[in-house]
Amino acid sequence: MTDIFNEDRPHDECGVFGIFGNKDIDIVDETYLALYALQHRGTVGAGIAVNDNGNMNVIKGYGVIPEALPEKDLSRLKAAKIAVGHVRHSTKTVNDRANLQPLLMRYIYGQLALGINGALANYSELREQLHRGGAIFQSNSDIEVIAYMIAKARLETATFEEAVLKAMTEIRGAYSIVMMAPSRLIGVRDPHGFRPLCVGKLGENYIITSESCVFDSLGGEFVRDVEPGEMVVIDDEGPHSYKANCGGETNLCLFEFVYFARPDSVLDGMCVNIARQRAGIKLAKEHPVEADMVCAVPDCGVDAAIGYSIESGIQYGVGLIKNRFIGRAHTSRKKNAEHIFRIKLNAMKSNVEGKRIVLIDDSIVKGDTSKHIVELLKKAGAKEVHLRISSPPFKFPCYFGTDMDDTKNLIASKKSVEEMREEIGADSLGFLSIDGLHEIAKECRTGFCDACFSGNYPLTVPKNHHEDKYLKKIEI
Amino acid sequence: MTDIFNEDRPHDECGVFGIFGNKDIDIVDETYLALYALQHRGTVGAGIAVNDNGNMNVIKGYGVIPEALPEKDLSRLKAAKIAVGHVRHSTKTVNDRANLQPLLMRYIYGQLALGINGALANYSELREQLHRGGAIFQSNSDIEVIAYMIAKARLETATFEEAVLKAMTEIRGAYSIVMMAPSRLIGVRDPHGFRPLCVGKLGENYIITSESCVFDSLGGEFVRDVEPGEMVVIDDEGPHSYKANCGGETNLCLFEFVYFARPDSVLDGMCVNIARQRAGIKLAKEHPVEADMVCAVPDCGVDAAIGYSIESGIQYGVGLIKNRFIGRAHTSRKKNAEHIFRIKLNAMKSNVEGKRIVLIDDSIVKGDTSKHIVELLKKAGAKEVHLRISSPPFKFPCYFGTDMDDTKNLIASKKSVEEMREEIGADSLGFLSIDGLHEIAKECRTGFCDACFSGNYPLTVPKNHHEDKYLKKIEI
Amino acid sequence: MTDIFNEDRPHDECGVFGIFGNKDIDIVDETYLALYALQHRGTVGAGIAVNDNGNMNVIKGYGVIPEALPEKDLSRLKAAKIAVGHVRHSTKTVNDRANLQPLLMRYIYGQLALGINGALANYSELREQLHRGGAIFQSNSDIEVIAYMIAKARLETATFEEAVLKAMTEIRGAYSIVMMAPSRLIGVRDPHGFRPLCVGKLGENYIITSESCVFDSLGGEFVRDVEPGEMVVIDDEGPHSYKANCGGETNLCLFEFVYFARPDSVLDGMCVNIARQRAGIKLAKEHPVEADMVCAVPDCGVDAAIGYSIESGIQYGVGLIKNRFIGRAHTSRKKNAEHIFRIKLNAMKSNVEGKRIVLIDDSIVKGDTSKHIVELLKKAGAKEVHLRISSPPFKFPCYFGTDMDDTKNLIASKKSVEEMREEIGADSLGFLSIDGLHEIAKECRTGFCDACFSGNYPLTVPKNHHEDKYLKKIEI
Amino acid sequence: MTDIFNEDRPHDECGVFGIFGNKDIDIVDETYLALYALQHRGTVGAGIAVNDNGNMNVIKGYGVIPEALPEKDLSRLKAAKIAVGHVRHSTKTVNDRANLQPLLMRYIYGQLALGINGALANYSELREQLHRGGAIFQSNSDIEVIAYMIAKARLETATFEEAVLKAMTEIRGAYSIVMMAPSRLIGVRDPHGFRPLCVGKLGENYIITSESCVFDSLGGEFVRDVEPGEMVVIDDEGPHSYKANCGGETNLCLFEFVYFARPDSVLDGMCVNIARQRAGIKLAKEHPVEADMVCAVPDCGVDAAIGYSIESGIQYGVGLIKNRFIGRAHTSRKKNAEHIFRIKLNAMKSNVEGKRIVLIDDSIVKGDTSKHIVELLKKAGAKEVHLRISSPPFKFPCYFGTDMDDTKNLIASKKSVEEMREEIGADSLGFLSIDGLHEIAKECRTGFCDACFSGNYPLTVPKNHHEDKYLKKIEI
Repeated sequence: MTDIFNEDRPHDECGVFGIFGNKDIDIVDETYLALYALQHRGTVGAGIAVNDNGNMNVIKGYGVIPEALPEKDLSRLKAAKIAVGHVRHSTKTVNDRANLQPLLMRYIYGQLALGINGALANYSELREQLHRGGAIFQSNSDIEVIAYMIAKARLETATFEEAVLKAMTEIRGAYSIVMMAPSRLIGVRDPHGFRPLCVGKLGENYIITSESCVFDSLGGEFVRDVEPGEMVVIDDEGPHSYKANCGGETNLCLFEFVYFARPDSVLDGMCVNIARQRAGIKLAKEHPVEADMVCAVPDCGVDAAIGYSIESGIQYGVGLIKNRFIGRAHTSRKKNAEHIFRIKLNAMKSNVEGKRIVLIDDSIVKGDTSKHIVELLKKAGAKEVHLRISSPPFKFPCYFGTDMDDTKNLIASKKSVEEMREEIGADSLGFLSIDGLHEIAKECRTGFCDACFSGNYPLTVPKNHHEDKYLKKIEI
Repeated sequence: MTDIFNEDRPHDECGVFGIFGNKDIDIVDETYLALYALQHRGTVGAGIAVNDNGNMNVIKGYGVIPEALPEKDLSRLKAAKIAVGHVRHSTKTVNDRANLQPLLMRYIYGQLALGINGALANYSELREQLHRGGAIFQSNSDIEVIAYMIAKARLETATFEEAVLKAMTEIRGAYSIVMMAPSRLIGVRDPHGFRPLCVGKLGENYIITSESCVFDSLGGEFVRDVEPGEMVVIDDEGPHSYKANCGGETNLCLFEFVYFARPDSVLDGMCVNIARQRAGIKLAKEHPVEADMVCAVPDCGVDAAIGYSIESGIQYGVGLIKNRFIGRAHTSRKKNAEHIFRIKLNAMKSNVEGKRIVLIDDSIVKGDTSKHIVELLKKAGAKEVHLRISSPPFKFPCYFGTDMDDTKNLIASKKSVEEMREEIGADSLGFLSIDGLHEIAKECRTGFCDACFSGNYPLTVPKNHHEDKYLKKIEI
Repeated sequence: MTDIFNEDRPHDECGVFGIFGNKDIDIVDETYLALYALQHRGTVGAGIAVNDNGNMNVIKGYGVIPEALPEKDLSRLKAAKIAVGHVRHSTKTVNDRANLQPLLMRYIYGQLALGINGALANYSELREQLHRGGAIFQSNSDIEVIAYMIAKARLETATFEEAVLKAMTEIRGAYSIVMMAPSRLIGVRDPHGFRPLCVGKLGENYIITSESCVFDSLGGEFVRDVEPGEMVVIDDEGPHSYKANCGGETNLCLFEFVYFARPDSVLDGMCVNIARQRAGIKLAKEHPVEADMVCAVPDCGVDAAIGYSIESGIQYGVGLIKNRFIGRAHTSRKKNAEHIFRIKLNAMKSNVEGKRIVLIDDSIVKGDTSKHIVELLKKAGAKEVHLRISSPPFKFPCYFGTDMDDTKNLIASKKSVEEMREEIGADSLGFLSIDGLHEIAKECRTGFCDACFSGNYPLTVPKNHHEDKYLKKIEI
Repeated sequence: MTDIFNEDRPHDECGVFGIFGNKDIDIVDETYLALYALQHRGTVGAGIAVNDNGNMNVIKGYGVIPEALPEKDLSRLKAAKIAVGHVRHSTKTVNDRANLQPLLMRYIYGQLALGINGALANYSELREQLHRGGAIFQSNSDIEVIAYMIAKARLETATFEEAVLKAMTEIRGAYSIVMMAPSRLIGVRDPHGFRPLCVGKLGENYIITSESCVFDSLGGEFVRDVEPGEMVVIDDEGPHSYKANCGGETNLCLFEFVYFARPDSVLDGMCVNIARQRAGIKLAKEHPVEADMVCAVPDCGVDAAIGYSIESGIQYGVGLIKNRFIGRAHTSRKKNAEHIFRIKLNAMKSNVEGKRIVLIDDSIVKGDTSKHIVELLKKAGAKEVHLRISSPPFKFPCYFGTDMDDTKNLIASKKSVEEMREEIGADSLGFLSIDGLHEIAKECRTGFCDACFSGNYPLTVPKNHHEDKYLKKIEI
């Protein structure tokens, strides 16, 4: 969800959307509106590609939707039958226009547009192997490697579908992909199911996208999740399902529930807001405290805070107010972190004065934000501030599609809970346990990845980040 | 506060800000940031004027702050000692760049920059009288009439202060004005005190602005309210107070508490969020109902909903989720009202399904939005929806600085509560009583204007709107 | 005409345009295109005002036409019957958006939109007098004073026409004005006729504008010049002529022929390019020299260079080439004057090498540009460079609508011709004589102002510039 | 050079620039300014890539330089040691952002940035072959094929230089390429030398670029042309020359002299403006006529017109004036071709009235423009208009880097000279002969390509245009 301090938060890498339109809708409008519903999954850039009788066209840009896709660009997209869209949150290392998606490419059998949510674990190996075959790359994105792998596989297979299934046996990692071929819309989810992907309908038109909240936004309906290891192909005859020969356990990212997904989405059978409320209930059981009011860090902590309030019987109240108008455009006139913080967030003095506050947040990354908020509440007169986090301590890097690939900024990887509490200045600090989190999510029809909390990676992970290899190599 | 359907909401006309900087601050930065804190009072346009050694310069533009005041314009404003800023919400009739403020004008004694929150009741009479003296107007804004009245009064008075006080005896209506003279910052509040205005400090620097939330945002502190009928002048020696010879009762707009002001502001001694929470408590007493969950229309109904929950003992929960990313840029691709509605707001199906919901909103204007929301909740499975409004029915036009100057769109002016309930589709509907609202706000050090609810206008009001007279007259 | 070094050139203040459309044309499109034809008269800003059934609307902006009047603004102007447009070149002292024109104002009898080319000699006196009557000003432009004078006069006269004629007896100076009243288009030219103004037709539609080249551009035809001291009013019945009670000699600005006007315009009966060619012929007679090639400083010296070539028998050739793509956007990356100079202009080495060159330019202001160009030609191998200027030395300030109101930058006001030649580095230097210039222009149906060459002002001129008085006065 | 009717003119595809900076200069500034000097070679888009210690970054955009490379993008380019820049004029078929250059790609040995002026004759064969090896393409540009060919060759060669030389044996067609490798700047010119390429110095820094006018603009100096079939590599030790094993005759495009190149450039030893003046002289010999004035179509016909004037003894004069301010931004408000034509160009009535005019233009493509201009002159009173074209009739498509790849719009391919004369409405029409053109250019140190005039192609040309193959193929 949206959050106060983007700099001090984990970021997901992307949301994907595709639509196959049989009739009665404006494909470009629907895709544009769908990207708004997915905006929380990435605000660095966005793009839309359409297919007008086999002639594909793409527009892309930096920023939130209205900046990235201005009317003058949108109007260049002709009415079409198929469209794919993408919102992106980039990793910190590379921020190049070439990395924006959808990637529109041409291979021997025509055009293909692709967008991904995820990250490959064997990116470097595959890229090296492709380079050794003479390949050139124009970006540092996983999707370019995947596009090559499909193009190569297609040379040895009879159909496009077989080519994708073959490529899926070679790429490893987290990937929920939406692709547009000249006459088909394709959705692919990796065998582990790290990232969500689901199918829905808008009237007679099919949609494949990252989260179910898109269907509500467009006035359509959820049909089903794309299963881990499944490829769904939509053509004029409707949907077709293909299973990659993969098997094994599945590993939906637990952070999707804690943080990334929109509360009104349903992931693999589990309602996100219910999961968050249950996390609050569980947190109240694991870390009870005597207090006068339960407050949330807006907006991400609200559901868990209500859960905590229900379980503890302590009244829920508004302790902090966020300025809805402070957006991205603001940075050019910032003075210092503390100042900006005050512009974005204010304590409700009249509500917190003299009270013992339970403050609920969904995660702690660097810890700076928590420290600022606790300070703000104390200055406003709060007698005590008990910080409760509705996820376990976040200690290990993620290689499956978030930008949390480095532990050096993670306060929990360096300090004990007591040390963190001291640094943050809270009167007490409690995290949800890993077991607690698993228990909450057990309604899901899938297993989970908790590697960022536990260090147990479901896949062999790369020793060094792929950018290092290709970006810094100087030669000739 | 921010709201979901701007089209179906009352709009305040403007927020004002002025700063007199003695040292250690960047006047332009502070003004820019302050306007963000006031953004909820007007999103149609904004402006900043600075005074660099008596040479005034102004920048203005349409839209929210980052659009209205882009970096390239901001950078044209030199470091200065005094600055005034303004955010505007225009009336529907006239939307001309000439109406943006601050108004930078030159009269016989030099330059003056002015910004207003309010509206004159005798605008037409004064303008006609000025025209008969040979005046030309470049806008349809009240501030241009006021500027003339001050310039004229100055010809007959010994000092600028006397001129303003003289003008105050001639203009009637609602006005909280911030003015920048070559070496002074001036704040003026009309004798009725319709609109808020207060004084604060940022270190050694003085600020005069619409709402106290600005001081929190900038890291300053509240000093006191400007009293109804008072003029505060800040110069190198500090603040000076002058009282207009006016007297009589005071009439702070009750809608400021219900809707306009930010919850973290304190108006004439009363905390806005406390007032809203109390409105919820009172509402629960006046219109109790058996239900399973109390929900708020985000974000404006939250404080009252918590109050209702406290009083009724019914659990507070999140029934609706707002898309934080849908802003102004969206309109070019809208399909129809219902569609846009779905993009902006979604029901939390898992939370509301099978439940009896008490839904709290702060006001009903046309009634369309309420109808949409009730429908949304019912489609999501709510068993019953009991709508409770934390203000009385809004039946009479306002002439004191909002755009609610016409009753033809007000559902409450045409229908009974039962008829409204039926049209909206709620299972029950209850409004806060006028007496209830007065009781809540009694901590204030001022009387109130409840004309929009009661029809009791504290001033003689104009028979026809001033634009009619001057805009449509064709001549020569 | 366009020129190489705007910084080192005199600037005219503005071009005006008005159209009264009876049928079959898009008023906004025609005005937009007409401003392109007038662009050489001012590139600082532009504006268009239209009158749609008595409801006037204006758009204005900084920069050349496509920047100042973007499509999004143009599209806000409704189809209308009357329109006025303006291009502006500001004086150096004040560059405020409020000074852009047309000025759209409302007085007691309705709306009026006005644009001026010119400057008032009694601006300060009139403004002071208006201030003493209580007037406020929002700009430093002459047109605002004129608007006030008309509004005031209107209170004492029976008709709008009488009011304008009355105002014309009170304002003194150079003014060619186009005005739009709710049902009329009005053109006014001062009794001296300092600046051009003419009437034309586009089909059945009437146009009043600064230069006749506009009619060629729009596909219309020239009808006649507005006479000095005349007011032309166009309404549904066609044009009406009124004469101000002024009489006396007339004084068309000689610099219009030398520099300001487009070569394809005809001013008061005289073709501009013919005048320039004759200036070259005269110059060849007054300052003959033995040489191998006559070259022009592009593009302004071409006509005179051809004249010099005809008279002298020396071959005309291209010695310098201008980069057509270097426009206004370039300044942010400039290194230094000399560098920019090279980007904008290059010598044709193969043409000038080993040759004795006669170089024709239309004027010398500061002298820097001439020095650069002579250097450029010498570096490219020119054996001799003989500079010939097709106007007399420019020694005195102009108060009639150009920005040459200061002599401190004029090389000719400080140095003798020989000293100038030395500084510029030319082998010889010759200016056209004042008598020569008068003789050339004698086909005109008007007398001339040669004050900038001779110091003989046809009007009493202001002792100090009006900005000084109002901008720097600090008070309160 | 710039021209009046871009739509009715041949367009070159691109200008290239590269700089290797040892000291004392700002690489980005120099590249930015150099692209202004090359702007006439392409106005559709531009780009700059820099190499900051082996980490390459690129910015690109549509439009002329100030639009394509705004300050906010330029400021993202860090100070660097090597930079390459490109201006592009696209073919009509494909106008996709992916085609803008420089192309920044990564292959197995690191990064490479490439820009081309030219077109491959065996594009389709090479692309098909690459696709069959698994390659994916993101554009339809020749440079992407070349990048692949170099990457592939590099797998089989010991050095980068050998790889480029190997690739040169496989690609056929017109190509002048500038490349940036991590520590080298490389210039490559095809063995036929279709497009110009030359080396210069700016102080101690080396430059490789399309035309010598760049050196004058930057204040540098011409060193020598890159020879057909040569690769020049600049590194810290200075320039190194490599020759591809190609041999054979060379074929500089004759149209470069007639039209594409800037008059102040020197191509393979021949001054462009001298060539154009001689074309005029030759034209006067081949097609003499009795007349009163020789005029040029501005600006491209001026040099030839002066040549015609010298040879014929007929006075040179200005018959047409171009509006310098009409640029690209204008198209949204155009009414029809004739109208726009009038805005852009006007006849100098006073100069042409009653005269017999020799009108010199550099080429005829569709013939519409010539017809408009003759009409314009006749309407302005010209007694006769004798059109003389300083190039032979343009009858055959070009496959070597211009967009004249289709004969269906070429009037000369369908009509005789007499038929053309009749359609255009001129009193006589004469073209320079092919032999005449060859004779003029004989000072060049190279042979020529006259295929567009003669149909004699120096290379086997593709049967169908490469876009057809890849754009329209629909599959899956």
